[in-house]
Amino acid sequence: MNLSWGQSNSTFKLMSSELPAVKDGEVRVKVLYFSNDPTQRLWISAGQDPKRQYMPPVVKGEAIRTLGLGEVLESKSDKYAAGDVITGVFHWGDELIVPEASVSGKVDKSLPYEWYLSAIGLTGLTAYFGLQKIGQFKEGQSVLVSAASGATGSMVVLLAKHLFKASKVVGIAGSDEKCKWVESLGADVCVNYRDADYKSKIDKFMGEETFDVYYDNVGGEMLDYALTRTKRYGRIIACGAISGYNDASKMSVNCWGEIISNRLTVQGFIAFDFFSDFPEATKDIVAVIKSGKVKVDEGVHIEDVSKFENPLEKIPEVWNKLFTEEKPRGKLLTKLA
Amino acid sequence: MNLSWGQSNSTFKLMSSELPAVKDGEVRVKVLYFSNDPTQRLWISAGQDPKRQYMPPVVKGEAIRTLGLGEVLESKSDKYAAGDVITGVFHWGDELIVPEASVSGKVDKSLPYEWYLSAIGLTGLTAYFGLQKIGQFKEGQSVLVSAASGATGSMVVLLAKHLFKASKVVGIAGSDEKCKWVESLGADVCVNYRDADYKSKIDKFMGEETFDVYYDNVGGEMLDYALTRTKRYGRIIACGAISGYNDASKMSVNCWGEIISNRLTVQGFIAFDFFSDFPEATKDIVAVIKSGKVKVDEGVHIEDVSKFENPLEKIPEVWNKLFTEEKPRGKLLTKLA
Repeated sequence: MNLSWGQSNSTFKLMSSELPAVKDGEVRVKVLYFSNDPTQRLWISAGQDPKRQYMPPVVKGEAIRTLGLGEVLESKSDKYAAGDVITGVFHWGDELIVPEASVSGKVDKSLPYEWYLSAIGLTGLTAYFGLQKIGQFKEGQSVLVSAASGATGSMVVLLAKHLFKASKVVGIAGSDEKCKWVESLGADVCVNYRDADYKSKIDKFMGEETFDVYYDNVGGEMLDYALTRTKRYGRIIACGAISGYNDASKMSVNCWGEIISNRLTVQGFIAFDFFSDFPEATKDIVAVIKSGKVKVDEGVHIEDVSKFENPLEKIPEVWNKLFTEEKPRGKLLTKLA
Repeated sequence: MNLSWGQSNSTFKLMSSELPAVKDGEVRVKVLYFSNDPTQRLWISAGQDPKRQYMPPVVKGEAIRTLGLGEVLESKSDKYAAGDVITGVFHWGDELIVPEASVSGKVDKSLPYEWYLSAIGLTGLTAYFGLQKIGQFKEGQSVLVSAASGATGSMVVLLAKHLFKASKVVGIAGSDEKCKWVESLGADVCVNYRDADYKSKIDKFMGEETFDVYYDNVGGEMLDYALTRTKRYGRIIACGAISGYNDASKMSVNCWGEIISNRLTVQGFIAFDFFSDFPEATKDIVAVIKSGKVKVDEGVHIEDVSKFENPLEKIPEVWNKLFTEEKPRGKLLTKLA
């Protein structure tokens, strides 16, 4: 991943082009926010078999696909009018032509825009459906979640505790400060995986008990550990595997045998699989937020690049923080305008 | 694994002991047949956490646990009388005291004894429940099965084709001769994994199609391949992982990401999980056998050790063939008397 512009081996290149005229069923959008997601890394991996991906890869020369939020400037759609604020699948850029099919919905302007790319955006919905549909999570059960300070992980903690009424929520995160925050969201305990003894800390907290459900965002070594700490007939929610996105060797799984001997169920999913349940889920999440028990705004980190001379150049740099020590807690958003 | 007797590092040791008197709820059994199963290797692995195993490990000094078939010589049980032939969880030995709880049932003497340790024994039932309960296999679906010439795998082929009415059954086995036999059982095609291009042979046979279900008996490299060839929303039946039983490094899984991007469900199981469904399953399997479409006897290889001066010394040697080039096709039984 080379973020420097203009080098022959740079991953990203800034290009300008004239926008075509808006056609029927399309809108022209001024982008306000971009979502930054680890899964975008998969879309630009070389040598993939497109048939095995959940979305088509972004090929060389194409603009990078992203979730975003923006204002409709011009519309030839029956569903969205100029002045509407919408979310959807966008591209990195400042002004875009977006087809209706790529718009996920209109924003209720009485709610903070940021929620639409975090708590009630795809990351919040991913946490929700992972627990509900894949984990088949029931009141009183226990859950272990990795990348617990991340956009999805932090929503898992919050929803497991305050919506699904978990008995025990244990998080794994990347710093003591993040762990403290994860505990403030509702985790009974959160351990820092940079501590050599983080696993034994979890073991100590759990005693003889094992987890009903493991919500996996990272794969690799933590997954191996979790496989050995999931209850007989327990469930593994396979949501992400960030440990291997930049280095596939870190994603190898060595405790497969646990799946057999302890009759675990592992299931992969994409929140879009439950598209028709989005309205119900959104209502549930908003109700939890409005109950006042949780503060989701603390889980959003906004990088405002509008202040830079050329904001567009900053987009990949901000996104790349997801994979570095600079990764902030919760959801990382880019404010473009 | 050292099979030589009397060496200080020998894995097995022949010991004699006086049988105690039969107590209430027990029977004394003369062993006729032993089942040989890869899973026994797991029971004697060092350094395991007993809590994570589906059965207690066999500890140093204990007799090796095994499935077997024998004649009741003496009974203090209300369920089994002298003269009955029973199957159950035995130990390696020629005459044993067996508690009622370890007996799985009485043999219908009108059926061949061997069936009780193969087609309608735990291997047949494992194939049956793997497909039915874990694979949720439906008429017209396709299945890929590894170790297809093995005891379980060969029953998977047979039942998938003749009972569950698969559209396509593809097997992977260890020799051309075994593959030929697997095809005679009902596989549309079987490939020899010792051929460097066995994967492309499967790809060629399948064309653009992928598998609804992968029945995994081996783990490791074949599992990795199968993960990339299982349909979106498909199912992986995690039955065994013999690739890693003697060398854990061969069991690492590198295509975990497929589980997420293609929303696969992986589920581990043990046939005993469906204990109450055993009679129904047995009836189904017997019906297929009696239909005459399949010849299950060809899937049983009996090593008669009764001819040796000391038959007991041969027991571990026969069992170890499961892990060597000498492994015969189908179920390997030891005939002790």
